[in-house]
Amino acid sequence: MASQEAGKLEWRISVDNGTTERLVPRSGLSKRFFLWLKGLVMKVIMERIAKFMRKAWRIGADDPAKVVHCLKVGLALSLVSIFYYMRPLYDGVGGNAMWAIMTVVVVFESNVGATFCKCVNRVVATILAGSLGIAVHWVATQSGKAEVFVIGCSVFLFAFAATYSRFVPSFKAKFDYGAMIFILTFSLVSVGGYRVDKLVEMAQQRVSTIAIGTSICIIITVFFCPIWAGSQLHRLIERNLEKLADSLDGCVAEYFKGNEVSTNRNEDEDTNTKLQGFKCVLNSKGTEEAMANLARWEPAHGSFNFRHPWKLYVKIGAAMRRCAYCLENLSICISYETETPDQVKKHFGEACMKLSSASSKILRELMEMMKNTRKSSKMDFLVFDMNSAVQELQETLKTVPIETNKPEEVPSEEENKVDSEERNTLMSLHEVLPVATLVSLLIENAARIQTAVEAVDELANLADFEQDSKKKSGDNNTKQPPLSS
Amino acid sequence: MASQEAGKLEWRISVDNGTTERLVPRSGLSKRFFLWLKGLVMKVIMERIAKFMRKAWRIGADDPAKVVHCLKVGLALSLVSIFYYMRPLYDGVGGNAMWAIMTVVVVFESNVGATFCKCVNRVVATILAGSLGIAVHWVATQSGKAEVFVIGCSVFLFAFAATYSRFVPSFKAKFDYGAMIFILTFSLVSVGGYRVDKLVEMAQQRVSTIAIGTSICIIITVFFCPIWAGSQLHRLIERNLEKLADSLDGCVAEYFKGNEVSTNRNEDEDTNTKLQGFKCVLNSKGTEEAMANLARWEPAHGSFNFRHPWKLYVKIGAAMRRCAYCLENLSICISYETETPDQVKKHFGEACMKLSSASSKILRELMEMMKNTRKSSKMDFLVFDMNSAVQELQETLKTVPIETNKPEEVPSEEENKVDSEERNTLMSLHEVLPVATLVSLLIENAARIQTAVEAVDELANLADFEQDSKKKSGDNNTKQPPLSS
Repeated sequence: MASQEAGKLEWRISVDNGTTERLVPRSGLSKRFFLWLKGLVMKVIMERIAKFMRKAWRIGADDPAKVVHCLKVGLALSLVSIFYYMRPLYDGVGGNAMWAIMTVVVVFESNVGATFCKCVNRVVATILAGSLGIAVHWVATQSGKAEVFVIGCSVFLFAFAATYSRFVPSFKAKFDYGAMIFILTFSLVSVGGYRVDKLVEMAQQRVSTIAIGTSICIIITVFFCPIWAGSQLHRLIERNLEKLADSLDGCVAEYFKGNEVSTNRNEDEDTNTKLQGFKCVLNSKGTEEAMANLARWEPAHGSFNFRHPWKLYVKIGAAMRRCAYCLENLSICISYETETPDQVKKHFGEACMKLSSASSKILRELMEMMKNTRKSSKMDFLVFDMNSAVQELQETLKTVPIETNKPEEVPSEEENKVDSEERNTLMSLHEVLPVATLVSLLIENAARIQTAVEAVDELANLADFEQDSKKKSGDNNTKQPPLSS
Repeated sequence: MASQEAGKLEWRISVDNGTTERLVPRSGLSKRFFLWLKGLVMKVIMERIAKFMRKAWRIGADDPAKVVHCLKVGLALSLVSIFYYMRPLYDGVGGNAMWAIMTVVVVFESNVGATFCKCVNRVVATILAGSLGIAVHWVATQSGKAEVFVIGCSVFLFAFAATYSRFVPSFKAKFDYGAMIFILTFSLVSVGGYRVDKLVEMAQQRVSTIAIGTSICIIITVFFCPIWAGSQLHRLIERNLEKLADSLDGCVAEYFKGNEVSTNRNEDEDTNTKLQGFKCVLNSKGTEEAMANLARWEPAHGSFNFRHPWKLYVKIGAAMRRCAYCLENLSICISYETETPDQVKKHFGEACMKLSSASSKILRELMEMMKNTRKSSKMDFLVFDMNSAVQELQETLKTVPIETNKPEEVPSEEENKVDSEERNTLMSLHEVLPVATLVSLLIENAARIQTAVEAVDELANLADFEQDSKKKSGDNNTKQPPLSS
């Protein structure tokens, strides 16, 4: 209907103008409808493409390392293609240059660790499986008529064993890709050997093309804007520590902020993002473990030695995740915030804020430690502060004036003697419940932060973090809170 | 030293026996040391291998599907190898049979969804990239001297675009493998075309070998003991629901069990495993999302239609994870269990147990719903029960006799009038705190369980679960608690 309407309109206008040609005759209605449909479809498709492009753009803008990686893949492939155009090089590997391209495409990963891991896996698995394949092929040719049987059985057995080994977690973490390449090469060599006359020569060519592919990958990944899995992991932990601190501060402040309504909407959104920060920590287990596995393949870089204790990052991550679980439940309390009377908030506000700020200060100090790879001189003070804040909060808990409301007991005269001002400060357990939950979660969170501190300390010791420049005296290893000495 | 000692001993014995030959001469000490060292190394290696084998055995015993998958890989490879030995088939694809083997190795995954996904990706990406590659190659040959430049630039651009698209999450979830194959095929065709005379013929052969490889994969994966990603996901959710219920029951029972010490160590261990069950739920996000993505590729199987709402499993998983966060913090309370006075436990025990058993009953009912893919007739009753248990617990909270201990106030004569029996039932807030935390976590958990119930209900409606056979009357959709009507 809409297209018909549009058609009439267009026709009338062309008549009115007089000079213009009648572009679309009335008889071409179906054609016009088709055009309109085509326009609609194109519009939808263009919109989807535009949406995809916007999303893609945002990903690149958020993390330029990804764009760099894509440029590097393009570069590596262009380099290996040039190889194809150089006759001496090409003839040297007997036209097997295809394997160099394949190696680059399959092996090139976004960080150095993953690329190294895949390169080593590919080379070792190819050599291993190649020699095994040649051996099996030799045995098969010696066995006369049983040739097909020998090869079939060996392919079945090795494929079974290699596939099975990929299910063992410790093996999978390091050699998953290698196992696949092993199956591939073994099958190709042992089976393909049946047809290829110069098996050894072919094997040599294959190994040299793979060597060319892997070396191009390694050179480009290490020397052109390297992206290290280790550094990424380190920064991830750093960022997550900050997010935890922000969330903790935000949650408690939100709870005790009182009833003033924020006028700035942007600020509100900003606060909300900060409050939700702990959710990143909840879901980062897989990333951390994968990164820690890859980082172990990387050579020394920046402030990380070859034997940097990457395993400890997983431990730190786990400790942080336990804090995040506390925060997740802390955010429950916020939804009950409005139900809590002001007097309850007033009673606990100060002590809670003190504990949360002491806790988040520790998280921020841990972040600084990671950022500068320096030991902290004031961590002991901060932990002591946090512990005394915990004790203070527990004292506040003991002095809370709670109303004894036993329904079965009629208020006696004695109770009425309590003057009105005092009655005002009495609270019922029901009213106190959300705050009580908040308090015990904060106390538990403090305990969990302490395990995170221990994990980071262990890392600092094992990885030989520098001493803090502010404190170069000999008593760096004193673990006692300085105030108690 | 030990080897020397052993050597002397052996030598003396051989002399004593007289008849035996002196097997190892004294001059062969270094040889003997070498043998001893070799034995030691072999022993260590054998021990490691034995350990690895034991681990591997346990994996297979725990999940026979993995062994089945390995057998299937072996079978598929053996089948594709036979292909190599049939001259008419082999000649038909011009010696490119290698690509069939490669396809099988790379594409065969442990479940049907993943295999389908990779097959479709491989075929579509190969055809797409192949035609694009031929086009680019044609343009390059037309452009005379700029040939190398045209090909280099196009490889760079397409490699960049395809690699970049792998960073977009929505694209990556479905077409990650396809993007890789696209780069690979495009480079091989556009670059390799320079050397190959019969490009189109080669392309045909390549496509037919890939078709052979993928069809072998699909036939074996679907018809020989198929392992469906969808069924695995369904069972995972089922198991996790049970684990949550066990953990919840266990936690609360553990807290209120009193001081009787269990005499049965096995039972203790069993309880502990059950208590820790929720941890599986905490970490299953990645698995659930991956499975849900793969399950969408699968054809209808068992009780799942082609358009089964797999997305909802992720939603159910998220709701369960939120319960697990509560349980994680619930387990804090257990560590404070000994600090809680018996009277406090007695006061809250009944109501808490009631709520926890009502909650876990719902979780078990959800599990049954998933297991039998049937709607539940008694879910409304159970939810109503849980809500009334919540209310009861809140009532218990209001009637708690709490001691007013304001330190600044000297106990007046009136307070001393409280008889000794009543004083016994008074509690301080400090004592009540762990229980209060437990209570509010239980209440929050109940709310979260309700969102899980809603998610499973949504699934039951969208996936057309059968009506419960026990209740075939018309009032299946009444959402009101039956007791309120």
